[in-house]
Amino acid sequence: MNCLFCRIVARTAEASVVHEDDRVIAFCDLFPVNPGHILVVPKLHATGLRDLEESDGGRVFAVARRLAAAIRATDLTCEGINLLVADGAAAGQEVFHLHLHVIPRHVGDGVRFTSGQPRTPSPRGELDAVADRIRARL
Amino acid sequence: MNCLFCRIVARTAEASVVHEDDRVIAFCDLFPVNPGHILVVPKLHATGLRDLEESDGGRVFAVARRLAAAIRATDLTCEGINLLVADGAAAGQEVFHLHLHVIPRHVGDGVRFTSGQPRTPSPRGELDAVADRIRARL
Repeated sequence: MNCLFCRIVARTAEASVVHEDDRVIAFCDLFPVNPGHILVVPKLHATGLRDLEESDGGRVFAVARRLAAAIRATDLTCEGINLLVADGAAAGQEVFHLHLHVIPRHVGDGVRFTSGQPRTPSPRGELDAVADRIRARL
Repeated sequence: MNCLFCRIVARTAEASVVHEDDRVIAFCDLFPVNPGHILVVPKLHATGLRDLEESDGGRVFAVARRLAAAIRATDLTCEGINLLVADGAAAGQEVFHLHLHVIPRHVGDGVRFTSGQPRTPSPRGELDAVADRIRARL
């Protein structure tokens, strides 16, 4: 029980829970990007996408959609929604129990997903070569 | 057929396709954040999460997981993965046909999801009040 999210599932750590069923729990992020920022978490511990139960993935995504609709129906400021999974420290994961962020967004909130560099189109030949390499591993 | 992604589904617009089945297509982002950046797209046009077919959501997420595993198995640099949905212009959506980004990440790639402000913990009372408002709309 060194995992914070497992302790939240067990209700031995505090959380502001918005949804719970047999497979999934969802609660407010303690460090919200914007008010209404929710984490959707499979109850069965999985570190990342690789060890997530196949069916739990669909459940997590379905709960995230319901939450997105619910957030929009509140009076919280919400002009858009980001769904975000960070799988691995290099991707920004900080708690190593898989979670999907549901983040209300509004114009002028200053939130960006960015490399800090202007994005430029890749040549088609490069993209085709990348696609070949990925397809070969599917 | 003013929708770019509908034209890709119809194969009247060019794309470097990595996966296609009866419900979902996946292809390389023309403006990759990192090499191997893929978009997973339901074939049936949906603008955002609100008009996405329930079953297509699960399919899109399942394909994204398979692609994440495939990208990791290539020799593309991949130390982590972000999954990202931008639903609405305020959330950074630019093509208004729902898509899920699968983005390979590595240490030092400079990519961040950030408001530019330090994230601070919210008081429990505020989070509980937010949770109440969302739960009331579920």
